[in-house]
Amino acid sequence: MGKKRKKGLLFVVSAPSGTGKTTLCRAMVRIFPELHYSISYTTRPPRPGDADGRDYYFVSPEVFQEMINRDEFAEWAEIYGYRYGTSRSLLERFSQEGRDVILDLDGQGARQMRNKDLQGIFIFLLPPSWAELKRRLTRRQTEGQKALKERLRMAKVEMAEARWYDYVIINDEIKKAEEQLQAIILSEHCRRERMAEALEEMLQGK
Amino acid sequence: MGKKRKKGLLFVVSAPSGTGKTTLCRAMVRIFPELHYSISYTTRPPRPGDADGRDYYFVSPEVFQEMINRDEFAEWAEIYGYRYGTSRSLLERFSQEGRDVILDLDGQGARQMRNKDLQGIFIFLLPPSWAELKRRLTRRQTEGQKALKERLRMAKVEMAEARWYDYVIINDEIKKAEEQLQAIILSEHCRRERMAEALEEMLQGK
Repeated sequence: MGKKRKKGLLFVVSAPSGTGKTTLCRAMVRIFPELHYSISYTTRPPRPGDADGRDYYFVSPEVFQEMINRDEFAEWAEIYGYRYGTSRSLLERFSQEGRDVILDLDGQGARQMRNKDLQGIFIFLLPPSWAELKRRLTRRQTEGQKALKERLRMAKVEMAEARWYDYVIINDEIKKAEEQLQAIILSEHCRRERMAEALEEMLQGK
Repeated sequence: MGKKRKKGLLFVVSAPSGTGKTTLCRAMVRIFPELHYSISYTTRPPRPGDADGRDYYFVSPEVFQEMINRDEFAEWAEIYGYRYGTSRSLLERFSQEGRDVILDLDGQGARQMRNKDLQGIFIFLLPPSWAELKRRLTRRQTEGQKALKERLRMAKVEMAEARWYDYVIINDEIKKAEEQLQAIILSEHCRRERMAEALEEMLQGK
């Protein structure tokens, strides 16, 4: 049929910390075995339990800087003094192979991604409520009142980014949020512009 | 919270005949018990097995004409000499009640619907291939070669309409097509513009 392989799609998931973003992305990889969960490069030192190549690719500030110089990042950002970046060539390779990629990014990184020709689909995950997010950050928090206040301020700045995303999911029940993200991934493949080739082929039928 | 009830969404499904549109729409009603399957008014006489109020609302040409005169249809069309129309007030009532409606319409009706302020989501269902559609129409067909040719011609005219729909589903396996339509219904509720109110509320949190 000479059919070209369909390009893979790029799903970018953002959320304020404490919203369950990573859990949700990992669940998608279980549901869609072909989906690739993209891992960032970071200059942040590994924490106990972190594995290189699973949680992040851990690199030195010097290596990271060289990668910037060689324009190897589709996006990169500095957060709390550490740098995080996504390899452009990895994303392009998966897209060409027809495999979808899911990526978790903060608003800063997501904005850079939107301005690229990568045509991501942007999904923002919200906590069930502001009160609940506050509760979670307080419970988790070990750094004193001032740091907590700063995290809450950051969470609100981050959440305001949701205004330009394609989709918003409220992570009220994890099962429901999973179903919704799964539905977004499935349905985006059915969008007319992505089915155009199959349609035109059928309209040629004799 | 003074939260307004979210409006229900309107899903319009089109397909050339023999594609399994009705089966698929009925499956959605089983999956989403709150979803309302909208029934058309028609001047076509009932066939054996047709039930008034389940398959169609069967009305006389005179009653249908009066409904047109009173502007009671969101859309109506004439197909093979019979008229089919969708009650506008029914659609509006469900939307206000926050209930989604699914509607099967031909391209003619769907186009009228798109030009209304009803903000439908348009889904086109394709057969697995042109050859397969031909096979199905031939098998089903009892009206001779000329009528078959006409049906095939109509099917192609109809399928060309898919070019302006929001989504295209290929009904290759019914289970897969069901999953895709279900995903579209779920994901459309997560679109940012429909979540804007929830987001702004959260951004007001103290």
